[in-house]
Amino acid sequence: MSSAQKRIQAVKQHLTPEQKYAQAVDPVASMNEERAKASFDIRALTLLMDGGQKQTDLKEKIMQELERDPLFKMDDIHDISKSELRERTMEKFRSMLHYLQNESVETFKKRMEIVSLIDPGFWTRFGVHYGLFVGALQSNATSGQLGYWFEKGALSLSNFVGCFAMTEIGHGSNVPGLETTATFDEASDQFIIHTPTLTATKWWIGGAAHSATHAAVFAQLIVKGKRYGTKCFVVPLRDPKTYNTLPGINIGDIGKKMGRDGIDNGWIQFTHVRIPRGYMLQKHTKVSRAGHVKEPKLQQLASRVTMVADSGHFSKKALSIAIRYAAVRRQFAGSNANGIETKLLDYPIHQRRLMPLLAQTFAMLFTGTEMTDMYNIMMSRLDGAKEGDEDLDEVIEILKETHSTSAGLKAFCTWNCLNTIEACRQACGGHGYSAYTGLAQMYQDFAVQCTWEGDNTILTLQLGRYLISCYRDALNGKKLSPGVGYLNNLDNLIGKKCQVKSLEELLSPEVIIEGWQVVCANVVRNAGIEFEENLKKGLQPDDAYEQCSQSRLYAAKLHSFGYLFNRFADGVSKISGSVHDILIKVCLLYGLYSIEENAGAFLQYEYFTPAQIEFVRSSVNKLCAEVREQAIPLVDSFNLSDYIINSPLGRKDGNVYVHYFEQVKRSNPQGEHPYFNRLIKPLIERDIGGGDYEDEEAGLESEDEDDE
Amino acid sequence: MSSAQKRIQAVKQHLTPEQKYAQAVDPVASMNEERAKASFDIRALTLLMDGGQKQTDLKEKIMQELERDPLFKMDDIHDISKSELRERTMEKFRSMLHYLQNESVETFKKRMEIVSLIDPGFWTRFGVHYGLFVGALQSNATSGQLGYWFEKGALSLSNFVGCFAMTEIGHGSNVPGLETTATFDEASDQFIIHTPTLTATKWWIGGAAHSATHAAVFAQLIVKGKRYGTKCFVVPLRDPKTYNTLPGINIGDIGKKMGRDGIDNGWIQFTHVRIPRGYMLQKHTKVSRAGHVKEPKLQQLASRVTMVADSGHFSKKALSIAIRYAAVRRQFAGSNANGIETKLLDYPIHQRRLMPLLAQTFAMLFTGTEMTDMYNIMMSRLDGAKEGDEDLDEVIEILKETHSTSAGLKAFCTWNCLNTIEACRQACGGHGYSAYTGLAQMYQDFAVQCTWEGDNTILTLQLGRYLISCYRDALNGKKLSPGVGYLNNLDNLIGKKCQVKSLEELLSPEVIIEGWQVVCANVVRNAGIEFEENLKKGLQPDDAYEQCSQSRLYAAKLHSFGYLFNRFADGVSKISGSVHDILIKVCLLYGLYSIEENAGAFLQYEYFTPAQIEFVRSSVNKLCAEVREQAIPLVDSFNLSDYIINSPLGRKDGNVYVHYFEQVKRSNPQGEHPYFNRLIKPLIERDIGGGDYEDEEAGLESEDEDDE
Repeated sequence: MSSAQKRIQAVKQHLTPEQKYAQAVDPVASMNEERAKASFDIRALTLLMDGGQKQTDLKEKIMQELERDPLFKMDDIHDISKSELRERTMEKFRSMLHYLQNESVETFKKRMEIVSLIDPGFWTRFGVHYGLFVGALQSNATSGQLGYWFEKGALSLSNFVGCFAMTEIGHGSNVPGLETTATFDEASDQFIIHTPTLTATKWWIGGAAHSATHAAVFAQLIVKGKRYGTKCFVVPLRDPKTYNTLPGINIGDIGKKMGRDGIDNGWIQFTHVRIPRGYMLQKHTKVSRAGHVKEPKLQQLASRVTMVADSGHFSKKALSIAIRYAAVRRQFAGSNANGIETKLLDYPIHQRRLMPLLAQTFAMLFTGTEMTDMYNIMMSRLDGAKEGDEDLDEVIEILKETHSTSAGLKAFCTWNCLNTIEACRQACGGHGYSAYTGLAQMYQDFAVQCTWEGDNTILTLQLGRYLISCYRDALNGKKLSPGVGYLNNLDNLIGKKCQVKSLEELLSPEVIIEGWQVVCANVVRNAGIEFEENLKKGLQPDDAYEQCSQSRLYAAKLHSFGYLFNRFADGVSKISGSVHDILIKVCLLYGLYSIEENAGAFLQYEYFTPAQIEFVRSSVNKLCAEVREQAIPLVDSFNLSDYIINSPLGRKDGNVYVHYFEQVKRSNPQGEHPYFNRLIKPLIERDIGGGDYEDEEAGLESEDEDDE
Repeated sequence: MSSAQKRIQAVKQHLTPEQKYAQAVDPVASMNEERAKASFDIRALTLLMDGGQKQTDLKEKIMQELERDPLFKMDDIHDISKSELRERTMEKFRSMLHYLQNESVETFKKRMEIVSLIDPGFWTRFGVHYGLFVGALQSNATSGQLGYWFEKGALSLSNFVGCFAMTEIGHGSNVPGLETTATFDEASDQFIIHTPTLTATKWWIGGAAHSATHAAVFAQLIVKGKRYGTKCFVVPLRDPKTYNTLPGINIGDIGKKMGRDGIDNGWIQFTHVRIPRGYMLQKHTKVSRAGHVKEPKLQQLASRVTMVADSGHFSKKALSIAIRYAAVRRQFAGSNANGIETKLLDYPIHQRRLMPLLAQTFAMLFTGTEMTDMYNIMMSRLDGAKEGDEDLDEVIEILKETHSTSAGLKAFCTWNCLNTIEACRQACGGHGYSAYTGLAQMYQDFAVQCTWEGDNTILTLQLGRYLISCYRDALNGKKLSPGVGYLNNLDNLIGKKCQVKSLEELLSPEVIIEGWQVVCANVVRNAGIEFEENLKKGLQPDDAYEQCSQSRLYAAKLHSFGYLFNRFADGVSKISGSVHDILIKVCLLYGLYSIEENAGAFLQYEYFTPAQIEFVRSSVNKLCAEVREQAIPLVDSFNLSDYIINSPLGRKDGNVYVHYFEQVKRSNPQGEHPYFNRLIKPLIERDIGGGDYEDEEAGLESEDEDDE
């Protein structure tokens, strides 16, 4: 034994019982123990999920730059006021502009993706101009108009910050129902933008309160007394030299929100505000000098594929916190543990709380990647195609499917993510309620994702409607796009039972995929039949759809489960080696968990027997235990730096208590009592009689002391 | 036609299309329309739910007093800082003391119940002293000690504010595992209170940061080197004259939380702090002058029945907002609506989102009342009973059942309530994300209920463990207490199928009750069998329980569903008349919804056939539509004043937009731009070349203007 070892042992022998205990449950040692279990190459998984070495390098470069940038200091974020937060958020604008102007679009997108993870409020504020305002120009302006506004400074932020004024206090999802009017005045060749009622007040307009000089305003086009529906107009709001609002423009601050307080949402009322005719963006509908209106033939399709991956990214952050904490937090001593408490992660029930969510996160990440790739391929095929091309129809079908599926998945995945954040928060026990552990704010910031970019319920119903129309097309013999191709196979799927010789055969992606196809075929068909019965009752199609909305919602939800599993299984099938070995477990866990969650449907349509469902349940338990063994390596593969995670409970080194305590002390420096003299002193010193009573024994009766 | 009518008509004829539209969708008229649909006596339902005229009068008196008390001003609560909020919270203490000293316990409890609904942070801060600290004295002090601390000022807050120091940063649910030590020093007849490690730091201690002079500290009793487990000690923290901390006491502020920032949670470290032996509360374990320790025979049983009703009360508040808003908010015009948009409440899917939650709220309220009544009856029978009394065993069995069931229901109902608040928030669309509509803060304040007073997962597992032990007792022939009595009937229930001649017969409480008994009997039995198999494998009982925790959780969850329905159906069966007619619908809705949510279990154990489950689904749709007709009258029966609801969207008169807009303007007064000169001016005026470009046509190409 070396003398150093001897000294260490000597020290150990002199430890108090409490110190020995502290050593046995040392969180850093607990974390190292978990990390040592890795059965696969963590770095290889990181590269795989990021899309290659170059992408990982880029991410790491951006994470480091942000961490070192004092503007992006995030550890005091919970203790600054809304005004300070907003001011600090504005301060970041300029540094982002630098990157915007000097980086490739791809690099800048990656930067914004990382920024969104650490500062969703800033991401929104920046995104309102570059995503929404510039996006509105790109979608709605003619090339000449686009050039004009870019020259005016819309791209360089020169005397120009844009905002996006669609929502009104009384109107959200129903864009055609907006009340703001844009009336063409032939005499002056101008549009008059006007807010006719209180409910027409523009509301939630990000950037309106303090940032924007111009707005992309959505208003009812009225020409010669006739209404042409909602169009987009650029309306100057403020003098860029003084930031005073222009005549007829009234703007106010929307104030405090559940989260994202860094963005200055505002309301706007227009009172007969005149703009030149050319400020109407006329890529689609055109209004001539003489007041002739020319309407477009085709409508645009939106895609929400990025929100699937975003949900995966936020889930990664939440799970990094909850799983790392569970690897070092101990609670209750088992029967053979010599008083050493058990790690949360070793409790079967805690595995049940977190491992399926970890699996679901991988499912969302794989789906996001696969969908984005497919979407990009289709878009470039579309761009390259000419009318009459053989495969144009196919491309359009796939894009329509992507549009509808991504609408449903946006809802499905943002709900999944919000629930994951909350489940992680609760899994951290009381500490999840502290602001400094990060999950509370993450919930509050993320919550809006279930509402904006399309209310989740409405989007889910849209997918349901699409599925019904696919079902009807299939009955008419139309070949559907791959994602809904199972509806071309109804005869085979309806009534099909699982054909396995042993229960163990259930543990296969093929069986799970077939199971989801059978269940989805049934629920889509039921919704379709209900819809057609409603039509037969004489309802108009829209009403017929409303009356079967619960079935639509159900069909869309189950289709999304099945879709996610398909994409995940497809992604995993392309991988090999030790990374495949762990991912296939994670994939099976997601598949069986998704079946368990929907056991009613699998039993209802008799794809599985009760005994098979019982086996699914116990297999989920087993897979949770197996994935738990690799939980820390899997979380490590997410490769989010401590700065990005911004929670002492999610620290990579596991040293949670020291850093949590330090953070709380740093954020709450000791000072004078803030209101002792004003409030407490008069309260507790008031004269109420008595109180001089003294008793050395403190009321402990001598008869209580039976020293026999 | 009178001249007044003529004038009104003349005015109407001159309305612009926008004004006519505004009139057609007037929210106040929409609300009145709903209220006029009442099929039952709203007041009668209010009295029923409150427990009689006297209770309702008292509630209304308290609501009015609070509304008029400037200290309880609540409409600016979202825009004040944490420090202001805490100071204001302290200010309310004194006014509450007045009522505490002058009202009956029952009246004061009712007052606190209402206070908790409007200001959960204050309720907590006050409750920490009167509920937790005084409660700890009452549970743990001898009568002499109780008298001593009351004389010292613990009841009158004379030189005394208490806090409750149980949780440590490293230890929450496992109270026996707390690390803080209380070592008896025989020489001085004192205890030495000490924080041996960082993880032993007392954490989350409400009132510690700025309010408390004394703490009820839970620490490991050590006498003559032997540990006796966790006991309770009163430890002075601060000099009440100066509020300086006493020697050896270090206290800090826990800072920002997800919600309830009015309460000043703190951390405490003790460094060899000496207290007299008499400061150990010795009702149960006693330590004599000579260091003899006498340990108690019986442990206390806690009851969490009040948290069931509390969950009902917060759900009422959330649903008042979401349902009233849905009655006036309109979105999309139906096919025959002349452009008048449809009320959210008229959408089947919106009914599906809110009506089952409304039914669940009634279920929780009935259950809360029934359990409280039963608990009080049993407690008075227990107090009146003597050892050897015939019915003492029965009473103890029922109390044990109440203890376990209320633990499980605390979890079940607080989760229900949190989900209800979030569902209501999302059902308000974007406005649910505004602070001023109240639901965001309600979520943030309520969230902690799922963790404190016993972590929900752990409590659910406790109920699961109790159910397994009941199952085993039943096998041994023991007669169980009524709430788990179905386990005495296993032979009859296992394998039982629903015996109805027609689907319509499913719409009966008896069938639903039987269905839940069959399903619960199966899942409890499965958990019991799994537990016994684990024992046979050689596991210790505790480990055997851990290994079947998922089955325990599942059994407890289903038992809670069935229990709630039972109590609800039982309560409704005692009512008659028009109130019964509506409540029986609400009750059936809850019952069928609860079956639908757990369709997997009902199919798995073959109580229902797939066709019957399909009928349940369509019946839930129908009942949602029927209950929707009475939704506003039902919400009105909750009888929460606009002040208590504190949300412009939940206003009784339906005038939501006017008041929401006013609130936002009042809370965000216009002022100078906060950072224009410092940040915006240099950003948007920086010289980047170009920008002088002017173009009257704003880039609208002349070739785009085809005036043919």
